[in-house]
Amino acid sequence: SRSIDLAVIPGDGIGQEVVAQGLKVLNAVLPQDVKLETKEYDLGAQRWHRTGDTLPDAELEALKNHDAILLGAIGDPSVPSGVLERGLLLKLRFAFDHFINLRPSKLFPNTATPLAGRPDIDFVVVREGTEGPYTGNGGSLRTGTPAEVATEVSLNTAYGVERVVRDAFERAAARPRKKLTLVHKNNVLVYAGHLWKNTFDKVAAEYPQVSTDYLHVDAATIFFVTQPERFDVIVTDNLFGDILTDLAAAVSGGIGLAASGNINPTGAFPSMFEPVHGSAPDIAGQGKADPTATVLSVALLLRHLGYEAEATRIEDAVSADLAERDGGAARTTDEIGDALAVRVAS
Amino acid sequence: SRSIDLAVIPGDGIGQEVVAQGLKVLNAVLPQDVKLETKEYDLGAQRWHRTGDTLPDAELEALKNHDAILLGAIGDPSVPSGVLERGLLLKLRFAFDHFINLRPSKLFPNTATPLAGRPDIDFVVVREGTEGPYTGNGGSLRTGTPAEVATEVSLNTAYGVERVVRDAFERAAARPRKKLTLVHKNNVLVYAGHLWKNTFDKVAAEYPQVSTDYLHVDAATIFFVTQPERFDVIVTDNLFGDILTDLAAAVSGGIGLAASGNINPTGAFPSMFEPVHGSAPDIAGQGKADPTATVLSVALLLRHLGYEAEATRIEDAVSADLAERDGGAARTTDEIGDALAVRVAS
Ligand SMILES: CC(C)[C@H](C(=O)O)[C@@H](O)C(=O)O
Ligand SMILES: CC(C)[C@H](C(=O)O)[C@@H](O)C(=O)O
Repeated sequence: SRSIDLAVIPGDGIGQEVVAQGLKVLNAVLPQDVKLETKEYDLGAQRWHRTGDTLPDAELEALKNHDAILLGAIGDPSVPSGVLERGLLLKLRFAFDHFINLRPSKLFPNTATPLAGRPDIDFVVVREGTEGPYTGNGGSLRTGTPAEVATEVSLNTAYGVERVVRDAFERAAARPRKKLTLVHKNNVLVYAGHLWKNTFDKVAAEYPQVSTDYLHVDAATIFFVTQPERFDVIVTDNLFGDILTDLAAAVSGGIGLAASGNINPTGAFPSMFEPVHGSAPDIAGQGKADPTATVLSVALLLRHLGYEAEATRIEDAVSADLAERDGGAARTTDEIGDALAVRVAS
Repeated sequence: SRSIDLAVIPGDGIGQEVVAQGLKVLNAVLPQDVKLETKEYDLGAQRWHRTGDTLPDAELEALKNHDAILLGAIGDPSVPSGVLERGLLLKLRFAFDHFINLRPSKLFPNTATPLAGRPDIDFVVVREGTEGPYTGNGGSLRTGTPAEVATEVSLNTAYGVERVVRDAFERAAARPRKKLTLVHKNNVLVYAGHLWKNTFDKVAAEYPQVSTDYLHVDAATIFFVTQPERFDVIVTDNLFGDILTDLAAAVSGGIGLAASGNINPTGAFPSMFEPVHGSAPDIAGQGKADPTATVLSVALLLRHLGYEAEATRIEDAVSADLAERDGGAARTTDEIGDALAVRVAS
C-alpha cells in the first residue's frame, strides 16, 4: 500500500491558516489506499523568539526523512530582516539542494488581473534555487562607518546552471508550445551571463524541437505586462526568478494564487512546496487569507510524488472554484478550503 | 550671453533618428540669446566594427569639456553582448561618476498603458548609477569547461549609497507628496541591504517632512502593476533600478516615452541624457521610432543646466501632443519631432 510521509512547516503569519486548508484538500483528494502521515515542525518567528533557533541540525536531519515538505510562510516584522529568510527558508532550499524552483503562472477565468484585455497567460518559470546572489557569499568592512564597503557575490557554476537549464528544456519539450526563454542580463553581468547563455545554447542543440529565445531581465518585465502570452517556459537565475515570479503572480490572478515547488529532482532530499506569498502579518489570524496558492502548491507536491491524476484534480477544482467566484461576500480561508475539498472529493 | 556646449552621441539603430528630433526641439525651445553648440561623436557599433574602438581615451577626455551629453541608443546584435554596453555606455556613466540615474514615470493622458483602469502614475526612480552589480567586478574560472565558476560582485559603499539616498530625499522633499520608498532585497542580500537600509534610516532623520517606506524588489514589482499611484520617489540600487524602470516605462505609456538622466550633481563631469529604450535595430531607419523619450530627455538636460522654464515647456508640449494623438495614421519620427518643435516654439 502507498503512503506519503509529509513534513509540515506552517511558519508565520497566515502560514498556519493556509497550510490547514492545504492539508484538508490533500486529505480529500488522496485515494483511500494512500496512507498520509504528517509531522508538524515548529519553526519560524515564534520559535526564534522563544529559543533563538531558526533551524537546528536535529530538525534539519529529521526533515530529511520525509517524502516532501509543505511550508506555509516564513517571516515576521518582529524578527530582523534576513534572520528567518537565511536561517530557515533559504537554509532548507540550500541544504536540500532545491535547484529547481518551479513557479507556474496561469490566469484562470474570472480572476483579477491588473492588465487590460485579460491576456492569455500560461507559463512556468524555472528559477534556479541554489546559486546566484542567494548563496550568502558577501560581507561588509568597516560596518556602520562612513567608510563601509558591503559586497554580495553572485556565484554561478556550470554544474548548477546546466542542471536547471536541462530541466527547463525537458519541461518545455513536454508542453504543447515547446518554447523556452532564457532571462538574464548578459550585457552587464557578462561573466555569469556568458555562462548562462553558453550553457543554454549548448543544451539547446540537444532539443531541436524546442524553440528558444533570450531576453534581458529588464526587457522581460516589459513583456510580462504587455505580452505575457508570448511566454511558455522561462529559465532564469535565482534573483531574477524571484523578481519575475512576483510580477508574474501579480499579473496572473494575484499573489493569492501563486504556487511554487522547491524541487530536488534527484530525490536525494525531500522537495518543499510553498505559496509564493509571504506571511502577511497584517491579516494573520483573521480568516482573510486566500489558501488557494497553498492548495495549488499541494498539487505541485502531488505531481512531484507521482500522483498526477490527483494533482490535476486539484487544479481543476481551483479552476472551477475561481470561475464561480462571484465577487460577492468574500469567503473565509476556511470556506475556500472547504469548497475545494468538496470539489476534489467528488 | 549664455551658451550650451553639447556633446551628441547618436549611437546605434534608431539613435540617430531620435537624437535628430531631440536637437530639433532643443533648438526650437531655446531663447534667442542662448548659443547652442553641438559636437557629434561617432561611437557605437559601426565605429567598433571599423576600428575596434568603443571609447578611446582621447574622446573620453574631449567629452569632459562639454556642458552635457545627449545620447541616442547603444547596442547592436552584430556586436557581442556586453562590448558596447560595458565599453561605452557604462564606461561613460562610471568615468563621469553619474551616480544619479534619474528616471521619471508619468502616465500622460491618452497614452497606452497595459493596466486596466488607467491608474494615476507620477513617480520618479532615483537609481544608483556607479555601484552595485554594475561595476564589472567579477570573473570566471575554467571558462567553457564543465567546471566553470562565474562570479559577479555587487559593490556597495557608504559613500556611494549615502549620496544617492540624500539626493533622493532632496527630490522627495521638493515634491508635493514628499514620499520616498527604498527598494532593495535586504532579507536575502543582507550585507548590501543593511548598508542601504541603515543609510536610508540615518538620512531620513534629517528629513522629518518626508514619509518613508521600504519594499523588497519583488514586492515592488507587484505594486508597480497593482498600485503604481502609491509611489512618489523611489531610491534603489543600480540593478534593481534597471529592472524597475523598464517595468515603470511599460506601465506608464511605454518605453517610447521613458526619459532618463545620468547625472553628476557636483558638476565635476558632464551629465548625460538618454531615452531608456534601446537601439531597436528592427525598426531603425524606417522613421517609425517615437522620439518622445529623447525629447523628454532633452527636458531633463535643460532642467539640469538651469533652464527650468524651457524644460517645462517641452514637457507641456509632449503632454499636449500626446493628448491629441488620435490613434489614426501613425506619424513618422520626423513628424512627431516637428509637431513638438512647433509647440515649444509658440
Ligand atoms: C522570503 C524570500 C527569502 C524569498 C526569496 O527571495 O526567494 C521569497 O521572496 C520567495 O520568492 O520565495
Ligand atoms: C544597455 C544597458 C547596459 C543599460 C543598463 O542596464 O543600465 C540599459 O538597460 C539601461 O537601463 O539604461
